[in-house]
Amino acid sequence: MGVRIGIIGAGAVGLYYGAKLAYAGCDVHFLVRGDLSELREHGIFVRGQGENFRVPKINCSNSTGEIGPCDLVIIALKATSNCDLIDLVPPLLHENTMVLTLQNGLGNEEFLAAHFGAERVLSGLCFIAVDRHSKTEVERYDYGLIILGEFGRPAQARTREVAAELSRANVKCSVTNDIALERWRKLIWNIPFNGLSIVAGGIDTAAIVADQNLRQLTLSLMNEIIAAANKCGHALPQDAWREHMKRTDSMTGYKPSTLQDWETGKPLEIEAIWGEPVRRAAAAGATMPRTELLYGLITTMDQHRRLK
Amino acid sequence: MGVRIGIIGAGAVGLYYGAKLAYAGCDVHFLVRGDLSELREHGIFVRGQGENFRVPKINCSNSTGEIGPCDLVIIALKATSNCDLIDLVPPLLHENTMVLTLQNGLGNEEFLAAHFGAERVLSGLCFIAVDRHSKTEVERYDYGLIILGEFGRPAQARTREVAAELSRANVKCSVTNDIALERWRKLIWNIPFNGLSIVAGGIDTAAIVADQNLRQLTLSLMNEIIAAANKCGHALPQDAWREHMKRTDSMTGYKPSTLQDWETGKPLEIEAIWGEPVRRAAAAGATMPRTELLYGLITTMDQHRRLK
Repeated sequence: MGVRIGIIGAGAVGLYYGAKLAYAGCDVHFLVRGDLSELREHGIFVRGQGENFRVPKINCSNSTGEIGPCDLVIIALKATSNCDLIDLVPPLLHENTMVLTLQNGLGNEEFLAAHFGAERVLSGLCFIAVDRHSKTEVERYDYGLIILGEFGRPAQARTREVAAELSRANVKCSVTNDIALERWRKLIWNIPFNGLSIVAGGIDTAAIVADQNLRQLTLSLMNEIIAAANKCGHALPQDAWREHMKRTDSMTGYKPSTLQDWETGKPLEIEAIWGEPVRRAAAAGATMPRTELLYGLITTMDQHRRLK
Repeated sequence: MGVRIGIIGAGAVGLYYGAKLAYAGCDVHFLVRGDLSELREHGIFVRGQGENFRVPKINCSNSTGEIGPCDLVIIALKATSNCDLIDLVPPLLHENTMVLTLQNGLGNEEFLAAHFGAERVLSGLCFIAVDRHSKTEVERYDYGLIILGEFGRPAQARTREVAAELSRANVKCSVTNDIALERWRKLIWNIPFNGLSIVAGGIDTAAIVADQNLRQLTLSLMNEIIAAANKCGHALPQDAWREHMKRTDSMTGYKPSTLQDWETGKPLEIEAIWGEPVRRAAAAGATMPRTELLYGLITTMDQHRRLK
């Protein structure tokens, strides 16, 4: 395929998938804001779950103008920095550039579509437990799958080509005709676990499922999300919570991304994970009282934290 | 009237109302568990909002057997210590002894009725902001009203006599024919404010009403409680939240009793304030999703605290 790939966002997700693609020989260009020198000097080191490799030399720049037009732009920035994309993305675009968001929650495709054209937008959901240990090191604890789709369209030929490119780089990848449904399916997990992990005082997924009360709250939240998704026209089955609980019961305790952000003082993806689902449900005539309560609490806790 | 009054529970509420009655010349006997000597030596000092008096000599004992039969037993113990009442109360009872609970939340009258006979049970709701500063000092910040009623019956002649006795002691007191309705009306305040004050990280009522998100959550909770009360057959008006918000907006920031208990490491009245309302609503076919979430979170936070 020989695609030129730009990656915006040098956090755990951007570095991990970018390193996989680069290691497989793809033409990958990282936008790195902040200090470039360590990545330039050391490259990226990836470890965890049978993986252990270094990409000693990577292309990185702190200016998308310097990177120039790409065939595929992968957005791995936090949703809270979306406004930065308005200036960052245009230098990366040619007529047919695809823009793939790997961000959490709801509202990111719409943002990209509004600014860069809906026809460009692909959407991917990452199922990965990954941490960035330093500027140049990421560790994958579990999973790695990307579910890939098109914004507001079924999968196209190009969707399958991008999936094939990721697969060649040993990234597990599946293609869906309905990424919006899959986003809601993922929220069944993120809304309770990301939320309760913070609100209950900084605990991981294992502590949540082991606690009788939090487990019950998790199930209540999951049912509420499935009902809201159905009201919004996304046909999640009533028992869609089951796979999430089963997976979480069997996995090692993990701190959800929002808790990691909370503990490291980074911005929280509150609107994408809680705010936008609540608003969409309300617009469709559904209520999400439990999700609303989490949304309000986390918003307030975040404001108090920033005041400190 | 010349009634002999026993008071069980020497916390802020028991000491305040007991001191008022004793100061007015009533025959008041305090059950004091723990150290008696300070109360015996110093009596009780009451201050706050135009009040400033000492009852230099009070009757107190650490044994209800020593106190003996009373005409009125006032229960000012935490609901979490109700099981202690099974042994404490009987020595205070003669054939016509009235047992008045001034406790928070739901389920206390039923407990007393089951153990000591429904016909004895009166129920009072205290609207008071009061703190115990030491073993012998209480400060009243605001209010003081008691709403008095009978358990499962309209007000009787004796209800009005007890109210008159309290009024003579300068305790504001009103009588209701439907104390169950008033208990739900009070929960409209306690469920959100006691709960959010803890869950949002130890903040007072002024901080809650000033915060846009918490204020909205408070209103949502209040509406949920009113709807549940209605389902349970208690005819609270739809706008019963309004008086609570108005009062709270105008009062000095106050730490609700459960937050005070949380901060001082005392047991929390979780079942009376959140658990029992949720169970009664469920039995009546109503759901209280927001209250349930608070209930679960506080239960878990309390367990974690006790493990520490």
